[in-house]
Amino acid sequence: MAENTLKKTPVTLLGLGAMGAALARTWLAAGHPLTVWNRTPARAAALAADGARPAETAAEAVAANTLIIVCLLDDTSVDEVLSGIDLAGKDLVNLTTSTPAQARARAKWARERGARYLDGGIMAVPPMIGVPEAGGYVFYSGSQELFERHRETLAVPVGTTCVGEDAGFAALYDVALLSAMYGMFAGAAHSFALIRKEDIDPAALAPLLADWLIAMAPAVHQTADQLRSGDYAKGVVSNLAMQVAGTPTFLSTAEQQGVSPELLNPYFELMRRRLAEGSGEEDLTGVIDLLVR
Amino acid sequence: MAENTLKKTPVTLLGLGAMGAALARTWLAAGHPLTVWNRTPARAAALAADGARPAETAAEAVAANTLIIVCLLDDTSVDEVLSGIDLAGKDLVNLTTSTPAQARARAKWARERGARYLDGGIMAVPPMIGVPEAGGYVFYSGSQELFERHRETLAVPVGTTCVGEDAGFAALYDVALLSAMYGMFAGAAHSFALIRKEDIDPAALAPLLADWLIAMAPAVHQTADQLRSGDYAKGVVSNLAMQVAGTPTFLSTAEQQGVSPELLNPYFELMRRRLAEGSGEEDLTGVIDLLVR
Repeated sequence: MAENTLKKTPVTLLGLGAMGAALARTWLAAGHPLTVWNRTPARAAALAADGARPAETAAEAVAANTLIIVCLLDDTSVDEVLSGIDLAGKDLVNLTTSTPAQARARAKWARERGARYLDGGIMAVPPMIGVPEAGGYVFYSGSQELFERHRETLAVPVGTTCVGEDAGFAALYDVALLSAMYGMFAGAAHSFALIRKEDIDPAALAPLLADWLIAMAPAVHQTADQLRSGDYAKGVVSNLAMQVAGTPTFLSTAEQQGVSPELLNPYFELMRRRLAEGSGEEDLTGVIDLLVR
Repeated sequence: MAENTLKKTPVTLLGLGAMGAALARTWLAAGHPLTVWNRTPARAAALAADGARPAETAAEAVAANTLIIVCLLDDTSVDEVLSGIDLAGKDLVNLTTSTPAQARARAKWARERGARYLDGGIMAVPPMIGVPEAGGYVFYSGSQELFERHRETLAVPVGTTCVGEDAGFAALYDVALLSAMYGMFAGAAHSFALIRKEDIDPAALAPLLADWLIAMAPAVHQTADQLRSGDYAKGVVSNLAMQVAGTPTFLSTAEQQGVSPELLNPYFELMRRRLAEGSGEEDLTGVIDLLVR
C-alpha cells in the first residue's frame, strides 16, 4: 500500500497483555516499525511473526526508539519496569491504568528523568482496538507537545481525546466515565433481577432497557447545565419531591419480586437526604453535593 | 382537518395532574370527545376552554363513555375515586403508577365489577407527551381485547408497547427500566462529583459521559444472552477477576477527589462476593443471581 511506503514513526511498546497485543497489531498493520518487550518473552515472540522486533530487555526496547508506549498491569509495574532505565529525551506515553494522583506523580517522575510525559486512559476493551466503528478511544493528558508530535501515531489503534495539560486528567476522565458505567450496569442488574421469577425472556427486556438507557443518558447535559449555573431547579421536569414520592413503588416492587434493594437504596437514601434539606423543588442534581466532602 | 371529521372514540379521563393534563390535550387536539374529572375542579375547568367536557363527579365521568382512562396519584387514590361507581361493561385503562401486585389486584377487582382492564406504565414525563420524536411510550398489559379495540386511541398521546396478558407486567417493565435509569443517574452523579474540585467544566464532561453511556448500554444484550444460556462466561471480554482487580483504582480515585464511594460500593461488593464464589472467568452477570432471594 502507498501509505505504508511513507516513513512511519517507530514505536516501542512495553507490555503485551491483551490490550498491549491488540495495540501492537494495529501499529504493525499500519506499517510502523515496532519494538516490543514483555515480562513473559513468549508474548513478544508471538508478535515477531507479524513483524515486531522483540527486545531482550526493557532497557533495550526503550533505547531503540524515541516514542515509548507503556501498557502494563499497574503503576507499580511501571515503576519496576522503568526504574534505572535512561529516559532522557524520550516521549513517554503511559497507557497503564492509574489514578489521577499516580499519573501526576508519574509525570513529575518522567520530567525529572528528562522525558516528556503523556498519560492515557483507554476507553475500550481489546476487541475494540483497530475497529474504528466500535467507537473506543483513549483520553490523553499531559505534554501537549508530545501529543501534537505523535497525534497520528497515537490515533492508529483507536481514537484520541485530549483533555489538557494536567497529567491526571486522562485518568480522572477515564475513572469518571467507567464509574458511571458501573452505575448503569448496577441499575441493569437490578432490572434483570426483577424479572427473574416471571415468565419474561431477558432478551425481551434487553432491547427495551438499552433503548431506555440510551434515551435517558442525555439527561447528563441538563445536570451539567444545572451544576454550572448553580440553579438545580433549572428546567426541572420531575422534581425531587415527586421522585422521592415514587421510591416506595420501586422498593415494594423489589420486595414483591424477591430482589434485594441494595443497589437502589444508596441513591434513594441520598435523594431523601437532599429532600430533607428542603430541596424538593430541585432536580436530582443536589445529590452530587452530598457526595463531595 | 379531514382526520378530525372521522368519528373518534370518546374518552373519559380521571385525573388531571401534570401527566393527565398533557394526555388530555393530545386527545382534544386529535378530535376525540373528552370527558374529564379531577378532584380539584379548577383543573377540569381549565381544559374546558380547549373543548373538554368537565364532569361534576367521577361517577358522571365514568357513565359518559365506555373507555375510561385513569391517571391518579397512586393505587389508593384509584380505590377512593372508583369505589361504588358502576364499571360494568367499561374498558378501564389504569395509567396510575402501581407495583405489579397492585396492578394484578386492580385487574381482578375490575373484572369482578364487569370491566375489562388494561394497566399502563408511562415511560415519559409530561413534556414528552404529544411529542413523538421525544421517544416516550406507555407499557400496556392486561386485556388484549381492550388493547386491540382502543389501540389507535391509546397511541394518540404517546407510543404504545404491549407486554402481554399479565396485568402486572406493564408495572414490572416500567419499574425495571426506571430502576436501571436510577442506577445510571447514580453513576453519573458519582462521575460529576469526581470532577468537582478540578478545573473541569461539567459541560465538558457531559457529552463524553452521555456518549460513553450510550455506547455501553447495549451491553445489556450480552447480559440477556448469558442469562438465557446460563453460561455467564459466554462472549466475556473483561472478566470478573479483571474487573474486581480494577476496583481499587476507582475507590482510590474517589478518595483522592474527596468523593464518598457510597454509590459505587454496593455493586463492587457484589462483584467481590461473586468472585469469591469462584466465578472470576465469568462476566458481571452473576451479580444478578446474588440479588435474587
